Amino acid sequence: MGKAHSNAYCQAPHFFDLPFTIKRRLLCGRDTASLAGMAQRWGWEETSTDWRSAIARSDIDAVDICLPNHLHAPVAIAAADAGKIVFCEKPLALSVADARKMADAAHRVQTLVWFNYRRVPAVAYARQLIDEGRLGTIFHYNATYKQQWGSDTSRAGTWKMDPSQAGSGVGDDLLTHLLDTALYLNGPITETVAKARVIAPNRAVDDAVMALVVFANGSAGTFEATRFGIGCKNRKTFEIHGSGGMLRFNLEDLNHLEFLDFSNPSSEQGVRDLLVTDMKHPIFGNFWRPGHIIGYEHTFITALAQFLQCLSKGEEFHPNFADGLAVQEVFDAVQRSAKTRQWTTVVRA
Amino acid sequence: MGKAHSNAYCQAPHFFDLPFTIKRRLLCGRDTASLAGMAQRWGWEETSTDWRSAIARSDIDAVDICLPNHLHAPVAIAAADAGKIVFCEKPLALSVADARKMADAAHRVQTLVWFNYRRVPAVAYARQLIDEGRLGTIFHYNATYKQQWGSDTSRAGTWKMDPSQAGSGVGDDLLTHLLDTALYLNGPITETVAKARVIAPNRAVDDAVMALVVFANGSAGTFEATRFGIGCKNRKTFEIHGSGGMLRFNLEDLNHLEFLDFSNPSSEQGVRDLLVTDMKHPIFGNFWRPGHIIGYEHTFITALAQFLQCLSKGEEFHPNFADGLAVQEVFDAVQRSAKTRQWTTVVRA
Amino acid sequence: MGKAHSNAYCQAPHFFDLPFTIKRRLLCGRDTASLAGMAQRWGWEETSTDWRSAIARSDIDAVDICLPNHLHAPVAIAAADAGKIVFCEKPLALSVADARKMADAAHRVQTLVWFNYRRVPAVAYARQLIDEGRLGTIFHYNATYKQQWGSDTSRAGTWKMDPSQAGSGVGDDLLTHLLDTALYLNGPITETVAKARVIAPNRAVDDAVMALVVFANGSAGTFEATRFGIGCKNRKTFEIHGSGGMLRFNLEDLNHLEFLDFSNPSSEQGVRDLLVTDMKHPIFGNFWRPGHIIGYEHTFITALAQFLQCLSKGEEFHPNFADGLAVQEVFDAVQRSAKTRQWTTVVRA
Amino acid sequence: MGKAHSNAYCQAPHFFDLPFTIKRRLLCGRDTASLAGMAQRWGWEETSTDWRSAIARSDIDAVDICLPNHLHAPVAIAAADAGKIVFCEKPLALSVADARKMADAAHRVQTLVWFNYRRVPAVAYARQLIDEGRLGTIFHYNATYKQQWGSDTSRAGTWKMDPSQAGSGVGDDLLTHLLDTALYLNGPITETVAKARVIAPNRAVDDAVMALVVFANGSAGTFEATRFGIGCKNRKTFEIHGSGGMLRFNLEDLNHLEFLDFSNPSSEQGVRDLLVTDMKHPIFGNFWRPGHIIGYEHTFITALAQFLQCLSKGEEFHPNFADGLAVQEVFDAVQRSAKTRQWTTVVRA
Repeated sequence: MGKAHSNAYCQAPHFFDLPFTIKRRLLCGRDTASLAGMAQRWGWEETSTDWRSAIARSDIDAVDICLPNHLHAPVAIAAADAGKIVFCEKPLALSVADARKMADAAHRVQTLVWFNYRRVPAVAYARQLIDEGRLGTIFHYNATYKQQWGSDTSRAGTWKMDPSQAGSGVGDDLLTHLLDTALYLNGPITETVAKARVIAPNRAVDDAVMALVVFANGSAGTFEATRFGIGCKNRKTFEIHGSGGMLRFNLEDLNHLEFLDFSNPSSEQGVRDLLVTDMKHPIFGNFWRPGHIIGYEHTFITALAQFLQCLSKGEEFHPNFADGLAVQEVFDAVQRSAKTRQWTTVVRA
Repeated sequence: MGKAHSNAYCQAPHFFDLPFTIKRRLLCGRDTASLAGMAQRWGWEETSTDWRSAIARSDIDAVDICLPNHLHAPVAIAAADAGKIVFCEKPLALSVADARKMADAAHRVQTLVWFNYRRVPAVAYARQLIDEGRLGTIFHYNATYKQQWGSDTSRAGTWKMDPSQAGSGVGDDLLTHLLDTALYLNGPITETVAKARVIAPNRAVDDAVMALVVFANGSAGTFEATRFGIGCKNRKTFEIHGSGGMLRFNLEDLNHLEFLDFSNPSSEQGVRDLLVTDMKHPIFGNFWRPGHIIGYEHTFITALAQFLQCLSKGEEFHPNFADGLAVQEVFDAVQRSAKTRQWTTVVRA
Repeated sequence: MGKAHSNAYCQAPHFFDLPFTIKRRLLCGRDTASLAGMAQRWGWEETSTDWRSAIARSDIDAVDICLPNHLHAPVAIAAADAGKIVFCEKPLALSVADARKMADAAHRVQTLVWFNYRRVPAVAYARQLIDEGRLGTIFHYNATYKQQWGSDTSRAGTWKMDPSQAGSGVGDDLLTHLLDTALYLNGPITETVAKARVIAPNRAVDDAVMALVVFANGSAGTFEATRFGIGCKNRKTFEIHGSGGMLRFNLEDLNHLEFLDFSNPSSEQGVRDLLVTDMKHPIFGNFWRPGHIIGYEHTFITALAQFLQCLSKGEEFHPNFADGLAVQEVFDAVQRSAKTRQWTTVVRA
Repeated sequence: MGKAHSNAYCQAPHFFDLPFTIKRRLLCGRDTASLAGMAQRWGWEETSTDWRSAIARSDIDAVDICLPNHLHAPVAIAAADAGKIVFCEKPLALSVADARKMADAAHRVQTLVWFNYRRVPAVAYARQLIDEGRLGTIFHYNATYKQQWGSDTSRAGTWKMDPSQAGSGVGDDLLTHLLDTALYLNGPITETVAKARVIAPNRAVDDAVMALVVFANGSAGTFEATRFGIGCKNRKTFEIHGSGGMLRFNLEDLNHLEFLDFSNPSSEQGVRDLLVTDMKHPIFGNFWRPGHIIGYEHTFITALAQFLQCLSKGEEFHPNFADGLAVQEVFDAVQRSAKTRQWTTVVRA
């Protein structure tokens, strides 16, 4: 992820009018050699293997945490305590308790959680259509995140397969993305019943999780995240049905949003394939001309740029640590349900 | 449904070499005038409003039941007791107990349940690919059936909205179709947790049902049926991920089957859009030349023709009443789970 | 084609309220055995190998010509001279001169040419949208018809490969379909430049033809028909761009019409996938409920039914022999251009 | 285009191991204020309004020409004469004669023409499949480039609408892109017949051009470029049919390549939707993980990086000025044909 973040720091000023100057001051990590290579490639001024002294520096305003999940809490809390702006990779923490502590520690500083997919123009436009009432009363919200690499046993050794570092498997990694998007588009989730499965032999973390969820707005839906979705490289989807129409999205085609307007005459209703690259669509106009598509990295660039714009105006940026905590609360209910096999209420921490 | 069935009786001999001659002997119903019109249009020799006397006739070999769900059991049992071949619309019955009685009553006669979608060439071909091992070990089986007419309150008055005739709403109507296809393609379901919802005000039957299910083969999945799937006219889908690949299907495009072969080199893996209209595909060759697509009605024609071929050879036809009962058993677990809010085991009757 | 026509005679009364009763009186052909089988299967009352005596019979009102192309003219003219209603397979004739004679001979009788694809609901709906002005001024009209069986040398021996019977190859067979649809949707074609190619070794008829065309309404476009369109089973498409929007169609997915409404706000413009199975769409309501798709054969059923409805009302049916002649005129210009390598004006016969 | 080029200079070292260091030394233009803004945003060290003195500087190794088309020749020739590496926007020149002079002037220096779409991973992979013989003998090559902004009369005043600066309209702008891709994938074009049209009132340059073309390898096809392709933002496509299969591509979905392998059993043949984001696909692995898509700008980054890699190894880069000249030769035949209305041979300059 360091590559995607570094790229955002380089590129944000190229495509957005930023109220601040970004300096790539210090790159921290464990391995000196790889730090040097990374710094060289991406223009980091210095490197260090000691994050604690980095946080103590007065010439650093913001700390960006790209670490295995179990390290998010201690580093974020230390950074926030030092008065730094804190950016943190998702999921925010390994537990609701940790996430609560992080949100508390950060109450005086501005924060960002890298649920970067809110910044896909098509996702932002989906939110806009919902906010405008175009979908009416929401009935159904379905979400999937399917990858296939779980079946590749050669990848067993990464920290993502170690519960002490990753928490869970696909749950922390992919389901939290689904939950953040759902909370963003459809509001709070109140209860869930879920099932998690380890599919690969001898694997310590879950490979697949599925859940039924109920939203505070009365809608309900199915969620599924898997690393055994053979045939899917990075297929994150949502499908929303409301009294006013339908929306569908697939991250592998992130420049598209499918929209059906149920207020059209019945003979003219059809799923509309919107290529969300118009100057009137959110975000896209910062990049290229209509039809000249963007990709994965632009979500990070945009999140960073919009954070800085919020910071400058004194507005709250989302998703921040409070939003990261909200995801954690739902995910906690999912995990409890997977253990108890019961419908489980989402508890606000 | 009488239209689709009548059409099958007319058309089966045109496209299949049948071992029997079909005579459209007697059409039963409640309304004399509409019976007359229907008989005239579809070439039924006689009409009657008394199904009991019809069943007693010695010149009738088979009885086809297109009635509201609550009448399936009494008519089917009477017909079977009279030694008739019995065809019955889905779902087989309003309860497992009734379905069990029907299957018992029919133990001496050949039966057919109109889960017609098994006869979509693409579905039959999916089954063939699975039988050949092309999908390997199945990990995920997802299914949806989405229609949108539930939001049209002008349609409130039909028998499908009356629990005493229909049993449930979308559960009996659409979910049972999903279950039959799932049992056909992926084998027995062992347990489920489900949620049913009435969405329209003052409606007596459920509009939407969703479930998590576990299969005997170790795979698991999400199921959802709704009449509030705004944007979907008749969207019945499945998506299956196995160690060998992926299959996807959508009834609104029933001539297509999407297939990903995970044994291809990774650079050549892609979702293959198979137009299941080749002479080597199942069923299709009975109709037209490659690329000259077929539709909804052909599933009924094919089910009937294949039933007659089985009958002639003394082979068991599927789906028969035993298969209809198996669907009912799973559906019963879904309904119990929706009430108790518990994971619920499927019980064999 | 006899199968598709016979089916239409059986099915039209089942789905349409017809003003006439259809009797399958007499089936003519060359081979007594296959005639008997066909008559048995499709309920033809009699068979004959002598079409001339058939035409002389007073108990026959209509003659349907499913013969190799070179026989269309003599049989149609004889039938028309005998006062029969005449249906004729496409293309109408091997030459403009013959087509002209046929149209002249038929001036006192009602005629039909089996350009059946006008009766795809999606195509009829495209015409309706154009008639309503929804596409505005047409700029571009592109059409392709791609099949792949030309590369299968085992199929060399059919009459379709014999110029004396078929006229040309893909030109007569597929390009004429494109031309009829284009004339139907976009009006007269004024000039063309074309190229025809024989691709298979030792083949006597063309395998591929492509053309640039100019329409009387000022629009222009590309046309291409091929039997070497590897990957395409029966892919007949059109794509139309006008000041008001876009339409796209593909015969392999004939229940769909793609429509872009350029009057929508730019952020809401997208290609709309219309599933043309609504009760308010043309034709479809005669068959099944929304989303329950139809296929190839329904175009023949509908053409026949609408012909009979026109006949009853004294209205002109289209496409009739005059329409078939109009196609022939454009096709003649294409063929002349392919020979002379010049832009060639379409001449009205 | 300055934005896309500047971005390439910034980003190439981030994603590729480059044998050279890129310095953004000097930015030339006409307007001092906008030069300052651009230099500030993209990190250009200096600015100037005098390109001639820039070319004279010894601390500049390469000149990149992003100017209206009529200025390509004088600047490129001056730069090449000064021994600079020359990059030039497409089309290379306003005439074959100018292009010839440019190629001649550049015979001692390395050159690049910004036909950037060769560097779409899906396009490079298409070329690889063709080179490997997977498509066999090519029968058909069809190409379209459709944009819709021509109908927006508010955009009349740009240099692209002025023949003295742009040469032609859509021909120079979009058709040349089609030609370069065709030459890259399918080899030389030998002759063509074409038609160009001005659609907007009072417009001095063509809005639409279409052509039939014949390739040296015996295949043939249709080409069409338009700014009145209502419904299409930036839809550049190719469709290739060969004895071994089919390929299809659409620039608006540039991470996809559609592939049909005709060597599969007929029942398993289907258009395969390859998401060209695998580590084994060309180019993509330099950017992100599978399924994390890229966009428009990555084609410029890659072209630049691969140019530098070629330069370092002493290998010829393509497309260079000779390739740009080859495009010009075909385009010249298209333009002559559009005037003379004759089939026109492509002449090598």
